[in-house]
Amino acid sequence: MAHTLTAFADAVVPAPWQEFCVHPNPEATAMAQNAEHHYQKATVIGGGVIGASWTALFLARGLAVTVCDPAPGIEQRIRAELAAIAPNLEQLGLPDVSSSSMPLHFDPQIATAVAGADIVQENGPERLEIKQQMWQAVESGAPADAIFASSSSSIPASAMASGMKDPGRLIIGHPFNPPHLVPLVEIVAASDTPADVIDRAVAFYRAMGKRPQVLAKEIPGFVANRLQAALFREAVYLVAQGVVSEQQLDDVVTSSIGMRWAVGGPFQSFHLGGGPGGLPDFIRHLGPALEALWKTLGTATFDGATVAMLTTQSANFGGSVDELAARRDDAELRLLRALDEVPAGA
Amino acid sequence: MAHTLTAFADAVVPAPWQEFCVHPNPEATAMAQNAEHHYQKATVIGGGVIGASWTALFLARGLAVTVCDPAPGIEQRIRAELAAIAPNLEQLGLPDVSSSSMPLHFDPQIATAVAGADIVQENGPERLEIKQQMWQAVESGAPADAIFASSSSSIPASAMASGMKDPGRLIIGHPFNPPHLVPLVEIVAASDTPADVIDRAVAFYRAMGKRPQVLAKEIPGFVANRLQAALFREAVYLVAQGVVSEQQLDDVVTSSIGMRWAVGGPFQSFHLGGGPGGLPDFIRHLGPALEALWKTLGTATFDGATVAMLTTQSANFGGSVDELAARRDDAELRLLRALDEVPAGA
Repeated sequence: MAHTLTAFADAVVPAPWQEFCVHPNPEATAMAQNAEHHYQKATVIGGGVIGASWTALFLARGLAVTVCDPAPGIEQRIRAELAAIAPNLEQLGLPDVSSSSMPLHFDPQIATAVAGADIVQENGPERLEIKQQMWQAVESGAPADAIFASSSSSIPASAMASGMKDPGRLIIGHPFNPPHLVPLVEIVAASDTPADVIDRAVAFYRAMGKRPQVLAKEIPGFVANRLQAALFREAVYLVAQGVVSEQQLDDVVTSSIGMRWAVGGPFQSFHLGGGPGGLPDFIRHLGPALEALWKTLGTATFDGATVAMLTTQSANFGGSVDELAARRDDAELRLLRALDEVPAGA
Repeated sequence: MAHTLTAFADAVVPAPWQEFCVHPNPEATAMAQNAEHHYQKATVIGGGVIGASWTALFLARGLAVTVCDPAPGIEQRIRAELAAIAPNLEQLGLPDVSSSSMPLHFDPQIATAVAGADIVQENGPERLEIKQQMWQAVESGAPADAIFASSSSSIPASAMASGMKDPGRLIIGHPFNPPHLVPLVEIVAASDTPADVIDRAVAFYRAMGKRPQVLAKEIPGFVANRLQAALFREAVYLVAQGVVSEQQLDDVVTSSIGMRWAVGGPFQSFHLGGGPGGLPDFIRHLGPALEALWKTLGTATFDGATVAMLTTQSANFGGSVDELAARRDDAELRLLRALDEVPAGA
């Protein structure tokens, strides 16, 4: 949720984005006809944290990457991010994405940046009109068979594709932060999106070592963020009620349901909790108790008192944000290796 | 939740339990005065799945264990469980709890079973009147400084202790299934429970290699099961709405929030998602979007159509319950080792 909700915060759209979607590329059609689709080139639109992480992943998987972002200093920022990410990817046996020999390019114009792209992964500001303009420009400049994916967490593909000639080409390819480590990609498309568009996106993300999941319907927050929000609402409630502190609640999660859900999801966990009869027996025997517990769950709001309490306790995590993030990344790498989740190469 | 909710299903209490709480032990007081509290003996009341798992853990940590359960064939059942658990504990570097040289005893009478115990861990039927009778019998027979802990997930300590001479001795020590692998123990007590009672329970569970968390208040479901229930409610909603299948939802969880929460809880995750400003910045920027998402979350009931859908899909987990459970245990062991969660010896 971190990265995706971060996008909501882009209330102020940086000025360069506002004149970003111009200059169709006359060579695009010809280049598209010659494209061979061995996933040779990715265009990453928007070079924030998520864009940089996608860039690292695509480079590590052998693609050339063009980063398209009008922000001043984008190249330095991306290269700094790659330098930070490289050691983690190397621990997964992937190449050094911070090497100067990596096929990394920068082009602030969409029309030329997307030329020849096999995949366009967009991570621009979460503003509908900007997305719409960007995708019209992408469509004009990109090969006819390029995969079009937005990392958006909040704007449906059907909405941002409305100005495209072929809106059925666009899907949501929503990663979980950071995309270069966390396997999930949620693929969400309008109900009339052709199956082959979705199939090709699934194949692409699998080739990048990801675990794509195709949602059958567009729904706010998609699946992972909805589940996360449901748990977090109860978490805020329990802290606000004074049952446990933030740190205690975190420790409860890591030492029980977190480690459980890292190896088996909630349905399988209850399936195995039902004895030989599995989930049906679980529901039969324990469904009423679970329904009763659902009735007691709390609600939460970020009112002044709650925010004050959460803020005070947030001083107690035992390290700076950078230190804690480094520890988290290290632990996630160890977990990925331990669970053999390190996917095969592209 | 599996084991704890399982207890709710004990609508029929096995006959032996009904005449279980008798025969105070006249030697108890004298023995208590000589007790040295190096955690030498545990009495496990109730030899079901959870009782057997506690038994394995206590044996592995060097305690003598007396299992107190009136059920016929209890010794064979416990020994069979220990044989199944032993390989997992050996992978964690712990001794073979299925060895015939283990100090394992069986005594169907509470009064004598608890004599000399440092800890009494009770896992009897989730019926208030039975719990009350059991704890009166335990109090009569056990050393004056023995730790009294119930594994109950649904009956507050204050309720089950109401017939005891010193009700402040009893706490909930609620494990997560299976206790021999999952680190969490939730310690929950009445508001007037003396601090030293809680401190001694914390010290004991730590010595057993667990990660105890003390809740400040009694609340239905405690913390882990409430959080799990909150997420599962949304999970059932999403499957019932046809957004994803059970198996897809499970995969979403394991490949995103599950692996995240195995290494850092929900508060720290958002703390790190807030940038250098941490959780306060996260709430400032993204709180409104999160509150908006909370409003869209679903509800669920186990009505006929939902149960039918969940039952049909539960055939698609890709293995028998036994096979899947073995895979889960193996993965959890690898995760525990990878995250250095294997605790130091007692």
